[in-house]
Amino acid sequence: MTETNYALDTFYFLMCGVLVMLMAAGFSMLEAGLVRGKNTVEILTKNVSLYSIASICFMVLGYQIMYPTNAPEGGIIPGFGFLLGADHTADAVLAGGEGAPYYSARADFFFQVVFVATAMSVVSGAVAERMKLWAFLLFAVFMTSIIYPVEGYWKWGGGFLNEMGFLDYAGSGVVHLTGACAALAGVLLLGPRKGKYNPNGAVNAMPGANLPLATLGTMLLWFGWFGFNGGSELKVAAIDSANNVAAVFVNTNMAAAGGLVAALIVSRLLFGKADLTMVLNGALAGLVSITAEPLTPSPLFATLIGAVGGVIVVFAILALDKLKIDDPVGAISVHGIAGIWGLMAVPLTNTTASFITQFIGAAVIFSWVFAASFIIWFIIKLVMGIRVSEEEEFEGVDITECGMEAYPEFGAKKS
Amino acid sequence: MTETNYALDTFYFLMCGVLVMLMAAGFSMLEAGLVRGKNTVEILTKNVSLYSIASICFMVLGYQIMYPTNAPEGGIIPGFGFLLGADHTADAVLAGGEGAPYYSARADFFFQVVFVATAMSVVSGAVAERMKLWAFLLFAVFMTSIIYPVEGYWKWGGGFLNEMGFLDYAGSGVVHLTGACAALAGVLLLGPRKGKYNPNGAVNAMPGANLPLATLGTMLLWFGWFGFNGGSELKVAAIDSANNVAAVFVNTNMAAAGGLVAALIVSRLLFGKADLTMVLNGALAGLVSITAEPLTPSPLFATLIGAVGGVIVVFAILALDKLKIDDPVGAISVHGIAGIWGLMAVPLTNTTASFITQFIGAAVIFSWVFAASFIIWFIIKLVMGIRVSEEEEFEGVDITECGMEAYPEFGAKKS
Amino acid sequence: MTETNYALDTFYFLMCGVLVMLMAAGFSMLEAGLVRGKNTVEILTKNVSLYSIASICFMVLGYQIMYPTNAPEGGIIPGFGFLLGADHTADAVLAGGEGAPYYSARADFFFQVVFVATAMSVVSGAVAERMKLWAFLLFAVFMTSIIYPVEGYWKWGGGFLNEMGFLDYAGSGVVHLTGACAALAGVLLLGPRKGKYNPNGAVNAMPGANLPLATLGTMLLWFGWFGFNGGSELKVAAIDSANNVAAVFVNTNMAAAGGLVAALIVSRLLFGKADLTMVLNGALAGLVSITAEPLTPSPLFATLIGAVGGVIVVFAILALDKLKIDDPVGAISVHGIAGIWGLMAVPLTNTTASFITQFIGAAVIFSWVFAASFIIWFIIKLVMGIRVSEEEEFEGVDITECGMEAYPEFGAKKS
Repeated sequence: MTETNYALDTFYFLMCGVLVMLMAAGFSMLEAGLVRGKNTVEILTKNVSLYSIASICFMVLGYQIMYPTNAPEGGIIPGFGFLLGADHTADAVLAGGEGAPYYSARADFFFQVVFVATAMSVVSGAVAERMKLWAFLLFAVFMTSIIYPVEGYWKWGGGFLNEMGFLDYAGSGVVHLTGACAALAGVLLLGPRKGKYNPNGAVNAMPGANLPLATLGTMLLWFGWFGFNGGSELKVAAIDSANNVAAVFVNTNMAAAGGLVAALIVSRLLFGKADLTMVLNGALAGLVSITAEPLTPSPLFATLIGAVGGVIVVFAILALDKLKIDDPVGAISVHGIAGIWGLMAVPLTNTTASFITQFIGAAVIFSWVFAASFIIWFIIKLVMGIRVSEEEEFEGVDITECGMEAYPEFGAKKS
Repeated sequence: MTETNYALDTFYFLMCGVLVMLMAAGFSMLEAGLVRGKNTVEILTKNVSLYSIASICFMVLGYQIMYPTNAPEGGIIPGFGFLLGADHTADAVLAGGEGAPYYSARADFFFQVVFVATAMSVVSGAVAERMKLWAFLLFAVFMTSIIYPVEGYWKWGGGFLNEMGFLDYAGSGVVHLTGACAALAGVLLLGPRKGKYNPNGAVNAMPGANLPLATLGTMLLWFGWFGFNGGSELKVAAIDSANNVAAVFVNTNMAAAGGLVAALIVSRLLFGKADLTMVLNGALAGLVSITAEPLTPSPLFATLIGAVGGVIVVFAILALDKLKIDDPVGAISVHGIAGIWGLMAVPLTNTTASFITQFIGAAVIFSWVFAASFIIWFIIKLVMGIRVSEEEEFEGVDITECGMEAYPEFGAKKS
Repeated sequence: MTETNYALDTFYFLMCGVLVMLMAAGFSMLEAGLVRGKNTVEILTKNVSLYSIASICFMVLGYQIMYPTNAPEGGIIPGFGFLLGADHTADAVLAGGEGAPYYSARADFFFQVVFVATAMSVVSGAVAERMKLWAFLLFAVFMTSIIYPVEGYWKWGGGFLNEMGFLDYAGSGVVHLTGACAALAGVLLLGPRKGKYNPNGAVNAMPGANLPLATLGTMLLWFGWFGFNGGSELKVAAIDSANNVAAVFVNTNMAAAGGLVAALIVSRLLFGKADLTMVLNGALAGLVSITAEPLTPSPLFATLIGAVGGVIVVFAILALDKLKIDDPVGAISVHGIAGIWGLMAVPLTNTTASFITQFIGAAVIFSWVFAASFIIWFIIKLVMGIRVSEEEEFEGVDITECGMEAYPEFGAKKS
């Protein structure tokens, strides 16, 4: 019985993890669809490379920082270790009792490693079309080895945010806000794309080259999010756990639906059109919003949480453009602003949460990730530069960074 | 033991449901690939929006109509309720016995909600390239709140079709034929695309803009269909159930393969070419054909059922064009004609089914869905119109409805 | 307990199988992205058709050859049978004991049938852009009915390679090298694409038309590979088995990441650019490399095995071009050369393996598959020809073989 439950929980982790892994494809397609044709190969290269770098760095260092065996509970400074230990022995499992392991340690690593890749994927879209490939990949090393694992430890590794009662079920803060903060720091140091903002403040649209791809990417993210949130219950092999996982699946779906419909209506009211990119970002914002607490809301309430996220994201995208913060895919709005909303919405349905603690948690994550990222980006900028030359930006980074075109036969435009 | 089985069955439902959810991406890509470039953003917007609307409407109303707690078994008029109830308590599960729940109620809802979205997805393709976006979305509200749930109740909710012995394992009729009937009613009121049919009866090809996308969509549908049919066994946690689920997976795959190969050969014989769009529709027709009974056929027989579906669909597509019923993606043929074939094929291998009962079931579903849909479409047509203007159709609905182009750099043609 | 374990193992097989099934979509997208626009519909048609043909042929004949009930253990000549038998009875399962079945026979077939399709998918890319559609499909019949099943029997069916201690956990040799050998035989008889090689030995680049598709294909293959390797443990419902499956998931991911990063660095050093197609092939080579033994390496060692694969594949692709062996997608290098590396790497971490036995196994598979394939290709060449005419090659095979264009609106180039 214990044995079968162990197997079922392990298998559940692995299946949820593999769904999250596909989110890497989702981000790749979303971002490749929303940039211009001349910058498509490079964004694809960034996406597949960051996933790989995240996997390696988190295995070698990050996982041991985030889940240290030698750090005090409730601490600020995590412990350090290298490489993964052995898996649980059958004896330890069968011993049973309170602290006995009930799923494979390797399955836990697998589930965690795809999360850090998700956080890093948020960054690539925001800095698209003008950041140097190798500067970006170097940042990915620091982000996935240290920056993410440290704040991850504070919450999920048992550090001080967890101790103080900060709640973040699947990572509106730990993953999505984190990605957005790192992205924001990079964008501020990088500046907007050439020609995006006129001196008089007007914003020039730079439409994505391939909207079916962007839609596919969104659907793949939605699909993967069932693993992202559903796996974060951490257990399925009991009646209550199974009910909880099912509730999380339903609420995740409802929040995405709510966010999508809200963004659809808002974009219709604001622009007179059903703006597909806003609609897609609405769905993603709904997903980010519910991620901090996908369990306690009713399905109807989950829909509303998502819908608020969908409304927020439309205005956030417009506001960032007003501030001349150029985020080609809207990643800072989707993962950052909606992420904060998700954290603050937890106390609406979960009585063990408090607004002030949620606010402190968001502020701590923001401060750490933004500051640490800013320093890393700044050092990389000093050492090797982070922005391509004006000529390279005009020609497109695909040729200069990767030596090839995404659509060589279709005559993508230079502009 | 009961607890572990409950968890396994719940997890099985959720995994099957998440596969079906990806069918929304499949339909999106299939339809986006088969329409012309100027109508691509709009079909994508319709697809992601209808999925979201279906999720919300089915949660608020549809699910309670389809699975009423207060309606008599074998009835025609379902009961009404709003919102989802609580999940099963551990006590109720552990009590055991005949009627004890053996999987999460929320997981059941999740599995059901992705089905109604599938039915609605069938519609979007058939009315593509000329229907107003908001008229379509308004219809989606009625379809997913009422039309689908009522006939769903008749069969799967325990209504009169179920009582009389009508068999439809996973929904050749309840889902696919239903979608096709709603589509047909819309297409008849809408009329063909401008320039599709010459006065002399000749049919002008309007080739889809992106066949790799259409192929991807078909493969994603095939992938999702394992959840669609495999989850409809409703239980895996017993030896016979596990064997049944495995048989359903195998037969689903074989029927798709049979449909594909049959359509490949027929298109080679008829046109002298391996017509990829026919081949893809052959695979989908095979899948629809086996959906009414994927359990009792042998794998070889399942291949044949699918192959007959693949042959039928080629001729059905040609016949509909002869009748000037313009269905840009062949949805009515794939889901309607092959759906009827699937229902009628049940008695070939399942001795508890009868041809006459299957025929009555198909006729009831057709009558209800077609009539109800026709009335709804007709009212929408009166109130706000369902067809875009001739100029908008020429320019493409992407610009007029969504304000953007799918491939702004590649110069999609107007025609 | 036995019953629940049987259900869990069956469900695990089915889920892993369905992941592998999506690899068919992965190959389709990868190859469609890497060929030129004028040859895209045909490669899509080949991919979906070969999957279907593989399903049917393996059901009718191949599975019975590969897993014969009447052949001696350790034999060379397999037995023959037709069609699938019945599934295990509950009595046989509950009897327990050493030889009692612990998962559904149908689930086993499902898991196996998607493997043979994978082997065949390797071939289509290598012979792309110049091979006749129907010659290819005819070869697929022989490959999936006989050539693959015979060598599959030698290892996984209990034949002489298995008896002598040859190890191949999930098929670096049985599946990937096999596909590559069949491809090589075809390519040698077919010759390079017109204009690929200049008389002076210079190689002309023929860039793929759609790199986002190629990237998507790679990510889908990576996703599916978790099922490919993870399912090959053949059991999850025990503590050790669950730990093993989890280790395989982690190692599979690490090897892909290692291969990708290695190819990224090598391509930067060799070409001064981050060559996306090399990067993608690096990830795939990493996956192929770990497939022969994804269980015994530590995650770090798995990364290194993958990294070596990623380095090898870059040089292999360059070497094949030097030899004027024209493989448009690099399939022979990825699946053949990295496959051999994977087989030879087994003894590095698995003490029960020996280099000499691994070498013999690779040599036997190469000899059989290459020779048998060469004969079949040769006969097909004599009877109906395998290469399209020079004019058809110039015009693109899409029009001549399938009568349609992949991107009719975007003006794909002739060249």
